[in-house]
Amino acid sequence: MPELRKDPITGRWVIIATERAKRPSDFAREAVVSRNGHFCPFCPGNELKTPPEILAYRNGGGANQPGWQVRVVPNKFPALRVEGELSREGAGMYDRISGVGAHEVLIETPEHGQTLSTMDEKRVADLFWAFRDRVLDLKKDVRLRYILLFKNHGEAAGASLEHPHSQLIALPVVPKRVQEELEGSRRHWKHKERCIYCDILHEEIHDHSRVILESDHFLVIAPYAARFPFECWILPKLHHSHVESISPPAIQNLGGVLQKTLRKLDRTLELPPYNFIVHTAPVQEPAMPYYHWHIEVIPKLTRVAGFEWGSGFHINPTPPEEAAMYLREGTP
Amino acid sequence: MPELRKDPITGRWVIIATERAKRPSDFAREAVVSRNGHFCPFCPGNELKTPPEILAYRNGGGANQPGWQVRVVPNKFPALRVEGELSREGAGMYDRISGVGAHEVLIETPEHGQTLSTMDEKRVADLFWAFRDRVLDLKKDVRLRYILLFKNHGEAAGASLEHPHSQLIALPVVPKRVQEELEGSRRHWKHKERCIYCDILHEEIHDHSRVILESDHFLVIAPYAARFPFECWILPKLHHSHVESISPPAIQNLGGVLQKTLRKLDRTLELPPYNFIVHTAPVQEPAMPYYHWHIEVIPKLTRVAGFEWGSGFHINPTPPEEAAMYLREGTP
Repeated sequence: MPELRKDPITGRWVIIATERAKRPSDFAREAVVSRNGHFCPFCPGNELKTPPEILAYRNGGGANQPGWQVRVVPNKFPALRVEGELSREGAGMYDRISGVGAHEVLIETPEHGQTLSTMDEKRVADLFWAFRDRVLDLKKDVRLRYILLFKNHGEAAGASLEHPHSQLIALPVVPKRVQEELEGSRRHWKHKERCIYCDILHEEIHDHSRVILESDHFLVIAPYAARFPFECWILPKLHHSHVESISPPAIQNLGGVLQKTLRKLDRTLELPPYNFIVHTAPVQEPAMPYYHWHIEVIPKLTRVAGFEWGSGFHINPTPPEEAAMYLREGTP
Repeated sequence: MPELRKDPITGRWVIIATERAKRPSDFAREAVVSRNGHFCPFCPGNELKTPPEILAYRNGGGANQPGWQVRVVPNKFPALRVEGELSREGAGMYDRISGVGAHEVLIETPEHGQTLSTMDEKRVADLFWAFRDRVLDLKKDVRLRYILLFKNHGEAAGASLEHPHSQLIALPVVPKRVQEELEGSRRHWKHKERCIYCDILHEEIHDHSRVILESDHFLVIAPYAARFPFECWILPKLHHSHVESISPPAIQNLGGVLQKTLRKLDRTLELPPYNFIVHTAPVQEPAMPYYHWHIEVIPKLTRVAGFEWGSGFHINPTPPEEAAMYLREGTP
């Protein structure tokens, strides 16, 4: 069973894969396989090549048959498993938890050659409907404290399969970066009795130099202290700490906003690899006045130097005001 | 002038390059240049192609002439500059500091084709002598709070030039990851009145399953909650919070320990790209009983998926006990 281990100094949790552990020679082999894949397990007709589906939106066909628009299946090589006891134990001076959780794949479209930026915006919205459905289901399991939704697009961004898909990881711990955001925004609330993300929305709409696009329900900005060139944040205008509180009209609107944002990145940066990640509050906690869910989109343009990993310190070669200007003006 | 910006939520500082800002088309162009470089500005005879040297250890020759063994020069495209006022100011709701600091390159050997793992261990030690000399000089500038020493080895790890070199960045702020280590180790000290790194040394020597090598002055381990496969930490056995407190015999010993560690990585993982980074206490602070300087070495074996960036949450496919076993046994 995989396990979670806690760094005793910083308190960061890490998943250690103990079962299908990679040996030195596996790292080279992997690269070759991902380059030469012909067969696609996510294409219609190959439904039996994935574990049985957990959820599907369909126009026709039965479970695990073609006819779906969006399909959610367990990851075939999960980082965590739903089965098993959640046990916390010491290991010498260290702490660990059994690797209980969920790891699912959201197949975004039956069409292999599409991307979120070429798909119809209603289909992009379906991804968030499916995510919301999965969060509402998974949060019933009180062992699960946090649900991450993320996408790796392109090989350089970590995607091992080309067919458009996102991933969901449900964890028995809260990731460090989320903890930092919760602490930082709680500090601001204590001081000002305002949500810091609501303050950022207000400031950015007023200032306008970092605005990429604005819709009824969302503001897309290049954040003031962007870590990466052309990093974008999608902020909902209405305050909710949890993504699953999003209203149906806002979900529909988000489909178009994400599609347009990715289309702008595609045009400005020539189809870059990218990642996005939904930042939301821990699922077992009540609504918070100080935290505000949002999406961070990071195009993979530079090789990240190790010192940025090691230090948590970033050098961003493109001022966010310039990034916003290019993206704002490169109209979709 | 470059500037430092603070993320208002997490408090993380970022360098924003405002002068030589990269436009969208620069990202593609850059990749091509780094692949086809023929001329090497770091090779002997080309000393005038770098800014004038700050420090050199030589067998002969005058300043900025051949005859050096190690040579330290300002980075030609610095992320920060020593000139200018250190000004702190608000920008709407945000905070920024002018980009005052230093960015230097430590050229590790005159021989273009060498690496730290093929060089004589005395020459590897020279890198740390030079780093110590530079820290002792730079810390006189009280605007500088932190000095990062790091190395990017190989293109995939962020190196833009092949000739062996490390880099030093002196900052007017303390990087987030270091702050976290300082806070975490201070917490342990309050609770136990012991240094957590000294505890880790004790635990790892006793347990032995994660030990990669041990010398008179250092222990090299695969850390318990390693974020990356084959991540290695080099821990000095003697407690010092600041790397510049290292004794001359320990510097000599470190040359051999780093060389052997890199040689083990080279043999086990077939010459992987890697990064290392020296973690040390902020230069203007007095010696701390709770913090312990050390070096983290990270081979670049997997593409880091964006969700790891976004969440601070890592999945490591190789248990550190197995990584240590391969590295321990693959004798240099």
